[in-house]
Formats: sequence, C-alpha cells, structure tokens
Amino acid sequence: MNQDSAQHVSLRGAVALSHLLLRQRVRAGDRVVDATCGNGNDTLLLAQLVGPTGRVWGFDLQDRALDATRELLTAEGCLSPVELIRAGHERLGEFVTEPLTAVVFNLGYLPGGDKEVVTRPVTTLRALNGALDLLLPGGMLLVAVYTGHDGATEEEKAVLVWGSGLDPKAFNVWTSRQLNRPPTAPYLVLVEKRGA
Amino acid sequence: MNQDSAQHVSLRGAVALSHLLLRQRVRAGDRVVDATCGNGNDTLLLAQLVGPTGRVWGFDLQDRALDATRELLTAEGCLSPVELIRAGHERLGEFVTEPLTAVVFNLGYLPGGDKEVVTRPVTTLRALNGALDLLLPGGMLLVAVYTGHDGATEEEKAVLVWGSGLDPKAFNVWTSRQLNRPPTAPYLVLVEKRGA
Repeated sequence: MNQDSAQHVSLRGAVALSHLLLRQRVRAGDRVVDATCGNGNDTLLLAQLVGPTGRVWGFDLQDRALDATRELLTAEGCLSPVELIRAGHERLGEFVTEPLTAVVFNLGYLPGGDKEVVTRPVTTLRALNGALDLLLPGGMLLVAVYTGHDGATEEEKAVLVWGSGLDPKAFNVWTSRQLNRPPTAPYLVLVEKRGA
Repeated sequence: MNQDSAQHVSLRGAVALSHLLLRQRVRAGDRVVDATCGNGNDTLLLAQLVGPTGRVWGFDLQDRALDATRELLTAEGCLSPVELIRAGHERLGEFVTEPLTAVVFNLGYLPGGDKEVVTRPVTTLRALNGALDLLLPGGMLLVAVYTGHDGATEEEKAVLVWGSGLDPKAFNVWTSRQLNRPPTAPYLVLVEKRGA
C-alpha cells in the first residue's frame, strides 16, 4: 500500500463510510448540501471537496450548531463556498433549487447539545424527499441513522420503509451496517440516483 | 457534477459497490488477490488498478474460469501483473505470502458454468481466514455473497457468524444490502483491517 492509500481514514462508524463515498463522488465545483450541520464535520469535508468554485448549503435548527460549524470552517479556511441557514432540513427546497451531487443527513440530536431537539419522522421524510428531487444523476444522498435518541425507532422504521419503496429503476438504495458491533450502532443509508 | 464523476459506475449490485471501494483503496504497485476469478471481471479491475508494477494472484478451481479470465485480461492488455492459479481459494496461503491491499471473493457458482461447482462453508471460511492473515493495515477483504446456489443459506450464515465474531479493535466489518431490491439480492461483506 502506498502513501496515498495510507492517508485513508479507517472505516469505523457510519460517518467514516459516508466520508469515503463523498470523497469518491464529490468534485471541485459541485453543489452539495449538509442537511444537518451538527458540529460541522460533514460540512467541512463537503467544503474541502467542492472548493472555492463549488457551493455548500448547510442547515441546522440550532444556533449552537451553526456557530460551531462556522467556527470550524473559519479555522480551516473553508468558509467561502458555504452558506449556513438556520432552518430545519425539511425546508431545504425553499433555499436550494440547483441540482446537487450530494446531500448529507445525520439523524438524531446534536452531539453535546440538547437531547430534546431531535429529528422527527414526518420532517425527516419531507427533507429526504426534498433532497431526492434535487439530486443529479449519479448524485448521492447519505443518511447516518443513529438509534440513541427518543423516537429513533419510529424514525428509523420510517426511513427504511421510505428507502425500500424507492423505484429501483430510478434509485440504488443501500443500507450498510457494522457486523461486529452492537445492533444499536449507527448505520448508513445511501441513495444514489441512477442514470450517470 | 463534472466529467470525472460522470464516469463513475452506477452502484447497482454488490459488485458495483465492491468496485467503488477497490477504486478508492487500491493503488499502482499494490499486491492484491482475486480469490474467485469466475469470468474475470474483478481480476481485470484489480489488474488495471495495480498496473504493471503491481501484482494480482487470481484463483479458480475451474479451467473454464481461468481461460475466460486470461482471455479477458489479454484482450484488455492487462495480463502482465496477473498470475492465474488453478486452485480453490482455501489454498491461497500456499501461493501468496506477500502483504495484500485487497482480496476479492465472489461466493457462488461460475456464471454460465456448472452450478454443481459452488463455494462451500468450510473451504470458504478457511479462505477468508487465510486472506485476513495477509491483509495490510487499511487493506480490504470484499465478499460478494450470492444467495442463489445450493447450500447458499448455510454458507451465508457461516460468513455472517465469522464476520460478526471478528475483533472490532482489529477489523471494521460491514454488510451492505440493497434496500429496494428483493432480500435474495446479492450483498457485500467488507472487512477492513484497522491501523492504517
């Protein structure tokens, strides 16, 4: 294995797998969305991948999350392609109309934040459908599903039913789970729009 | 999405996902194994990725499979890094002793070949363990699991039990399934050796 491959992040956890897929698919100049900024780690990767000629829209309901994300992006010198929006992910379509290469979701509460503020099935499904409408052929929707918060089981079921109902002629839908970790470990749902 | 991303293959099927992961991880000069050549499609990708300075060992029990693979590699001008070996995948360790970046398995029968000649749980587990012993940190074992052949359920169970028992400190183990296709659709098991 050469130096280039040695730089790869170990595929431990749903976010690591999500990041591998983003690195593989997102290119300089692309338009992408972080539907749930949280502490800004996904937003940062997206900003690095699209670079100054691309565009990232980052959503979060909580000022605390947007502040943390802005701080991280500023520290890394990556704020220029990013627009941060204080709104729930279900309002994505009000702010973004351009075709997208990737949309990233983390379902659950803000790590270190208020555990009462969580994503909910109805708004999550609205958000996922809104994201799907904007995907380019070959574009990816990446959903890290956490099972730790109140109502997670209901939300999880809603996402799995939604994903299993997507037309296989139009979308490739994958669930990836870690086989040697507890069944409650976060997992990844990937939806790829076909036709690339 | 730019031209580079537009070249990506659609993630339809376990082999497509496996190929994305191989493209992301395998580099020129690497050492890799195709444990089950079949019609040679995985061997071809591996040969293209490692190039003339790398090395690919390709195994199959059937002359028909090795002939098809040799023909494909020759037609594509990629035969030089490849050594084709007529032996079951469980004998991998007899022929390969170098550390590996990737080992690819397809469990099941040769497409278009004799459906009586299939992979079997005992030899499959021996082969998987043999492959694991040779993986470099960051190296990947990619197993496309088919459910169509005689004894597939038993083999599938054996592979899942094996994977779920691997030490999470040493290996990241993932199963990826297509959510909007029948539960009998082939799926992918990925084992990554940690420590890269």
